[in-house]
Amino acid sequence: MTAVPPREVTRITCIGAGVIGGGWVAHFLARGYDVTAWDPAPQAPEKLRRLVDAAWPALTQLGLAEGAAKDRLTVAATLEEACAEAQFVQESAPEKLELKQQLLAQLDAATPRDVVIASSTSGYPMTDMQTQAAGPDRLLVGHPFNPPYLIPLVEVAGGDLTSERAVAWASEFYEVAGKSVITMNRELPGFIANRLQEALWREALHMVANGEATVKEIDDSITEGPGLRWAFMGPCLTFALAGGEGGMGHMLDHFGPSLKSPWTRLEAPELDSALRDAMVAGCEEAAAGRTIADLVAERDQGVIDVLRATGRLPGAKAERKAGS
Amino acid sequence: MTAVPPREVTRITCIGAGVIGGGWVAHFLARGYDVTAWDPAPQAPEKLRRLVDAAWPALTQLGLAEGAAKDRLTVAATLEEACAEAQFVQESAPEKLELKQQLLAQLDAATPRDVVIASSTSGYPMTDMQTQAAGPDRLLVGHPFNPPYLIPLVEVAGGDLTSERAVAWASEFYEVAGKSVITMNRELPGFIANRLQEALWREALHMVANGEATVKEIDDSITEGPGLRWAFMGPCLTFALAGGEGGMGHMLDHFGPSLKSPWTRLEAPELDSALRDAMVAGCEEAAAGRTIADLVAERDQGVIDVLRATGRLPGAKAERKAGS
Repeated sequence: MTAVPPREVTRITCIGAGVIGGGWVAHFLARGYDVTAWDPAPQAPEKLRRLVDAAWPALTQLGLAEGAAKDRLTVAATLEEACAEAQFVQESAPEKLELKQQLLAQLDAATPRDVVIASSTSGYPMTDMQTQAAGPDRLLVGHPFNPPYLIPLVEVAGGDLTSERAVAWASEFYEVAGKSVITMNRELPGFIANRLQEALWREALHMVANGEATVKEIDDSITEGPGLRWAFMGPCLTFALAGGEGGMGHMLDHFGPSLKSPWTRLEAPELDSALRDAMVAGCEEAAAGRTIADLVAERDQGVIDVLRATGRLPGAKAERKAGS
Repeated sequence: MTAVPPREVTRITCIGAGVIGGGWVAHFLARGYDVTAWDPAPQAPEKLRRLVDAAWPALTQLGLAEGAAKDRLTVAATLEEACAEAQFVQESAPEKLELKQQLLAQLDAATPRDVVIASSTSGYPMTDMQTQAAGPDRLLVGHPFNPPYLIPLVEVAGGDLTSERAVAWASEFYEVAGKSVITMNRELPGFIANRLQEALWREALHMVANGEATVKEIDDSITEGPGLRWAFMGPCLTFALAGGEGGMGHMLDHFGPSLKSPWTRLEAPELDSALRDAMVAGCEEAAAGRTIADLVAERDQGVIDVLRATGRLPGAKAERKAGS
């Protein structure tokens, strides 16, 4: 690959200036890149600048990279102009398969050879989108979360025709650009985070459809409950702590039978010894040497920090409720 | 009911001194109550005091109520002694149905008339547990999250024989005692928060069982992604923001078809107009007058606050990774 190394990228092209595309523009500007954007909508330049203006105070709070400036944004008149000198392209067009197929073929034709082109799609595997491009090997998915300038996660996945080098390049680049990357070794529908939040969301929709809970009860049950832990400790490690000093192994041995309970509309997998062992080993890997006592202390401090940061210490409660 | 009003409670009895029971003891001590505990295990008193000692620095950070003190804990020698002067009883025994049925009957016999007795169970409906008690009307579920001294949520639900007055009393009492309460009008298996987190958890187990994701990827996908938002804004309002200025209505109209996608193993409900309208109306109720722009600003500030509180601003990232 002749593209510049991930650490030497200075110029990024963002295609599409909606909520996600504009969010990417704001993120890359804040991280000190020159950004060229293009969107076919007539009002796109003004809308994009408004979005960047609106995000800039937040990005300033987060800490701007050296030299970062809003005026390092150029809005190009054509797709070809936008891509001509790109060192990385992020595509965030509407979620329509045919549109994505054609657009990616156009981007491939307009972008210097070997420069990686990533799609923000949450819905389509790259294998289905890269069918019309002459150079499909440098096309991949870089799936962000909204807003891309605040939520660190990016899920990277190639399609059947994507090269491993392009996937490795993109994963390294996103890390350099301040994102948290999960590089997937297969095209899983919904990737990882969306599969998890979609399962929760579908159960929530069922509950509302059946009059079992209101929207507000559903939201409150998360923000006042497990959501406080998930901001800094994932569902697996969190559940490992329910096993006391025995961790995930004890938790599964003790609470495993509850997988048979009708606690959700999603059927649980068979908790055989292979799955049990995989969960235990996975938690040990994720704990990376931290003991259960370490993790408990970390969880407790994390919850306190999050409660304080979001104005929910006991003393702050009355004011916050009054103010919201 | 002749029990003292919720605001006048000064003495609480906690039955069971494991992780959950001990967590309740710590919470009630920190909120300034006299707490009497009982657990049949021989080492229970020492274990309980260690748990309270371990939690106390966290509780001090959260802010102790006036007069709160660890030495306001009494460990009783018998169940009868523990309950004789109780103004509220929280039962946190192991999750075994027969044990719970018998224990609740014993607690009912030992506790002054009309004093509410709440079970911490996450697994059993009160209707199934209250069968052996002479006075089942004051028995109900008060389901906490771990650790009860840090996570605010308590789900309150009565059984078929529970009085509405007991449910209302418990809901008010928990609020006075510093918890966030959801009062359920039916016995839904898993209540609300556990149904939601269990759907996510089951999808996670399927993914590990099928080699689709590792434990660490699952945990990272939440803590670096949607988990950051869920600490202060629930999944429904968060998704409403994906609809731009059109909110939940636009989001469902636009992304509704993705409910047909195989993004999780949980089948989605039919998105008919009744469900659509219920979601839109529910989000409007939850927004309580805040516009989409207000909510976006609140979400952005919340994410920044949570990132800062958990040491994940860009500048802090390197140190945190090195330290963990």
